[in-house]
Amino acid sequence: MLPTPTKFALVSGTSEGSSKLNAFDHALLNAGVGNCNLLKVSSILPPGAKLVADLNIPAGSLVPIAYGSLCLDSPGELIAAAVGVGIGDPESYGVIMEYSGRASKDEAEVQIKRMVEEAFAKRGLALSQILVRAVEHKVENTGCAFAAVALWY
Amino acid sequence: MLPTPTKFALVSGTSEGSSKLNAFDHALLNAGVGNCNLLKVSSILPPGAKLVADLNIPAGSLVPIAYGSLCLDSPGELIAAAVGVGIGDPESYGVIMEYSGRASKDEAEVQIKRMVEEAFAKRGLALSQILVRAVEHKVENTGCAFAAVALWY
Amino acid sequence: MLPTPTKFALVSGTSEGSSKLNAFDHALLNAGVGNCNLLKVSSILPPGAKLVADLNIPAGSLVPIAYGSLCLDSPGELIAAAVGVGIGDPESYGVIMEYSGRASKDEAEVQIKRMVEEAFAKRGLALSQILVRAVEHKVENTGCAFAAVALWY
Repeated sequence: MLPTPTKFALVSGTSEGSSKLNAFDHALLNAGVGNCNLLKVSSILPPGAKLVADLNIPAGSLVPIAYGSLCLDSPGELIAAAVGVGIGDPESYGVIMEYSGRASKDEAEVQIKRMVEEAFAKRGLALSQILVRAVEHKVENTGCAFAAVALWY
Repeated sequence: MLPTPTKFALVSGTSEGSSKLNAFDHALLNAGVGNCNLLKVSSILPPGAKLVADLNIPAGSLVPIAYGSLCLDSPGELIAAAVGVGIGDPESYGVIMEYSGRASKDEAEVQIKRMVEEAFAKRGLALSQILVRAVEHKVENTGCAFAAVALWY
Repeated sequence: MLPTPTKFALVSGTSEGSSKLNAFDHALLNAGVGNCNLLKVSSILPPGAKLVADLNIPAGSLVPIAYGSLCLDSPGELIAAAVGVGIGDPESYGVIMEYSGRASKDEAEVQIKRMVEEAFAKRGLALSQILVRAVEHKVENTGCAFAAVALWY
């Protein structure tokens, strides 16, 4: 099987770019994961994974990552992205939720917490902690908001 | 290289949720893959992979998976998802097709079979069997239909 | 960690199909990667990765790949897909950009070069070479244009 990640970090970034993909690329750089090969996953925190501040990922590595992202070319619009990690029993898995939308950071935080709570309720698990990372960005020309839980080893 | 999966299972689920992502998460739980990290693939059955009824995947694992999914917030609408696995020569690879849409389960099954047949015809391969898994769901508020071929080891 | 790819190839294909997914499947076959399990990545060329003409990937393998793709059912429309690989210091990583749109191959090439240049400028890196692969396709019924950088071992 593929190796299960053992560490995680919450990261976020925003940026402008001359295309949506460039704005996304710059937002990844701003978040500190711009030089990795992101493999989007849907989205469970592996049991025992440790929260770290800095992932020290070598350039070009394949990085499992859960993220919310919105890249938009509507000048003046406020966009936000958020991730939430729900943690219950420290020996068990957690649940990661992602959000992006035309919203403020505050609205994204409220929404992501609600989503994590629902995921735990649906599993019948007690929730002891929610880690949240959210960003907002006012689009100038073509902008991107990105928030992620990067999983690593 | 990344390890090539050796087992597969067809799974499906439907659910409601208060957001599209929560509906998706609940549909994954209903399908039995809600506590994994899904890595979406496009979509070949590896040669020699064995069909199993239960995958026994540890929580948080990285799971290559081909899936069709539709999450919709249009109350009253009928949605469906389907996967099909075309198998020809048992020593060779198979082809997986995915479908989702505003359709019934029956319509999704007809469509997915046709897609698998076309994939085999295009490859000039004889088709000996098509495995199909399909579900439908009538949206109450925000619903999701999900059908997948999970690949495992 | 997941093994970091050591080789890469630029591939492209176009095709018609009776559904968008079949058109995509046929375009992958046309590009020579139709019998793999594509894992979409976002999108860095690992340091030291070697350009090869033929990847010789076993069927069913999990293949990290950066791609641009557009599948459209608008008869008569011209669609294009392109990838660009920016290479600077040969010992360091490169940056891959992907594009797809209602455009000609020439327009896609201009756009992808601009995107790679911007990615290097943003990183403050000198760009010594851009590899580009682009295709165009005039849709008959349901068509697909696909261009990719496949990463391998």
